[in-house]
Amino acid sequence: MPFNFEDARSKMIANNLDALVAFSPENVFYTSGCLLSTSQLIRDRLSMTLIPREGEPTIMVCNIEESFVRENAWIKNVRSYVEFQTSPMELLATVLKEQGLSHSAIGIEKMYLQTAYFETLSRTLPEATFEDDGHIFNDMRIIKRPDEIDLLERAAVATEKAVQLAYESAGRGETELSIATTMRQNLVKFGADQIAFLVLGSGRKTYHAHPIPTDNRIETGEVITTDIGGVFSGYYSDLTRMAVMGSPRKRDSENYRKVRATQREIIDKVRVGTQASKLYEVCLNSFREKGLRFHMPHVGHGLGIGLHEEPLLNPFNNRRLEAGMVLAVEPFSVEPQVAGFGIEDMIVVTDSEPRILSHHTDTEDLYIIR
Amino acid sequence: MPFNFEDARSKMIANNLDALVAFSPENVFYTSGCLLSTSQLIRDRLSMTLIPREGEPTIMVCNIEESFVRENAWIKNVRSYVEFQTSPMELLATVLKEQGLSHSAIGIEKMYLQTAYFETLSRTLPEATFEDDGHIFNDMRIIKRPDEIDLLERAAVATEKAVQLAYESAGRGETELSIATTMRQNLVKFGADQIAFLVLGSGRKTYHAHPIPTDNRIETGEVITTDIGGVFSGYYSDLTRMAVMGSPRKRDSENYRKVRATQREIIDKVRVGTQASKLYEVCLNSFREKGLRFHMPHVGHGLGIGLHEEPLLNPFNNRRLEAGMVLAVEPFSVEPQVAGFGIEDMIVVTDSEPRILSHHTDTEDLYIIR
Repeated sequence: MPFNFEDARSKMIANNLDALVAFSPENVFYTSGCLLSTSQLIRDRLSMTLIPREGEPTIMVCNIEESFVRENAWIKNVRSYVEFQTSPMELLATVLKEQGLSHSAIGIEKMYLQTAYFETLSRTLPEATFEDDGHIFNDMRIIKRPDEIDLLERAAVATEKAVQLAYESAGRGETELSIATTMRQNLVKFGADQIAFLVLGSGRKTYHAHPIPTDNRIETGEVITTDIGGVFSGYYSDLTRMAVMGSPRKRDSENYRKVRATQREIIDKVRVGTQASKLYEVCLNSFREKGLRFHMPHVGHGLGIGLHEEPLLNPFNNRRLEAGMVLAVEPFSVEPQVAGFGIEDMIVVTDSEPRILSHHTDTEDLYIIR
Repeated sequence: MPFNFEDARSKMIANNLDALVAFSPENVFYTSGCLLSTSQLIRDRLSMTLIPREGEPTIMVCNIEESFVRENAWIKNVRSYVEFQTSPMELLATVLKEQGLSHSAIGIEKMYLQTAYFETLSRTLPEATFEDDGHIFNDMRIIKRPDEIDLLERAAVATEKAVQLAYESAGRGETELSIATTMRQNLVKFGADQIAFLVLGSGRKTYHAHPIPTDNRIETGEVITTDIGGVFSGYYSDLTRMAVMGSPRKRDSENYRKVRATQREIIDKVRVGTQASKLYEVCLNSFREKGLRFHMPHVGHGLGIGLHEEPLLNPFNNRRLEAGMVLAVEPFSVEPQVAGFGIEDMIVVTDSEPRILSHHTDTEDLYIIR
């Protein structure tokens, strides 16, 4: 049972909470071991875990998921509601009452729970108080277990290979869409359960953060960028790789190399004890020194069961890095209307130097499609 | 500009609302034409559209999406916020104030907006009242335009083909995972941008609603079920198909044929004016007559930009069918611990008989993998 219930209990005590409730598919998976894909897609079909300070945890799901959860969850108390007949909030209120928690301080994920559900819950349990517990789960998920790091490494390697082989098999006159389709097929072939997102653009469109691939033919000399993520047994990958159709223009090559150099400067600063905001600052200063335009709200993020997790590498995050954190480091610089240059790799913080998980391709220069 | 702003305005008048705000990626896409995939994955990075009863609509996104939205949205007023620096709720409150709406009745998606964001919004605009407007968007999205039906048909046909070819290329001794991987690759090859979900199980595991494929070798005589959905230019497909490894057991074949017959009975009742709840009743009665166990909270659902949309085919939905609705009809019967039997097809309601969009394979019997 990888979820550390004891740690959760000590965090409840520190936060004066009598129970924690998880609603997001990420935290329900993290606490129970059950990945319920339909809760992600059908948001009113809420799954929930309740971890009281004293006593056993409970998982609550809609009745059609019950048999699967009974066989697959670490949590053995399983309760269910019938969709359209009973609100998940009624079931939660019933279970809280049964456990003597109707007048207690309950942690809930306020950055997930829908307003309409919260209105029902607070009306049904007027004597309870509800505090946000999202930070407690974030604090627990931030340090990855060795099995999670292995999975993230497998995801990173598979994703890197999927992109690289798509660039290698591309030729002159290829369209954005045909390269994207090859990447998606490769990603699945190398083990992704889902294609979470695939951003791909060429030429001028690379200045958008998230261009959608079209059937535009890529002209000789144009740069191509892709930002791609798959889900592997519930864990995300997230990488950016650039290429160029034929010979690169000198300016494009220079800009790319500068952004890549900045990324390595950031990675070099990844050490236990460094503040997340420091990495943002490194990027900002490095871009300025190199004459690159800087407009990013963050320069990277943790990832795992969630795509953007703590530590977020933004200017306001003073959290210090610890061994076992996994980061996606993604500096991006644009010349508006002209082009954008970026690279993103997944790395793990260790007690010494950081380890780059996506290190199988040579990223020093733009990859040249011949 | 496919979004009907005039219709939205008349619905606001009927509901005594001064403005509508959309937060869900589905409704932001529907109102603006912009599919912002990262808003789906990074939920705090909210995108929003504001449609006032009088005046022009506004789209609000985080600053890194701004250039893309300016080039691709139907809505020409684009406003942005910087993540981690300004809450999307602060920007929304500012725009509402600018438009003289700070004391107005504002429709918001209460089944999407996170509790924490709503707390900020209602604190920032204490004189405004906030009502749920989700039903207004649901009512608009329920009737599909011809271009949406074309897209859903393309999605249905591609998905059916992806499954069928995976079953055809499977052989004895295949694992669940290897069939699933082929299906995923096919789905991408036939045009899916994302694999939204892929449920696949064999033998006893088919009694779960959503089994996850494993590397279990499928034994001769075992049934296999898959429930699969892709996203095609922002629109979902959703199909269930069953097969059997080698010759089917007589009882499995009979059970499958009964469920399939029920599905056709339901589809035969799909006519303009029929209540959604009536289709549920048809399934319930048909299962009882045939001696099948019935435990479903619904027997199908609308689909489009969302996976589960109105009309939901549950016992409480008295909404009447209209031409242009697209439904997934999915009866499912289980023998607990033994097996489950289901089939799901996408159909469009027309002025005469319903049209099945996924009609290219023969589903009368279990598909036999030889």
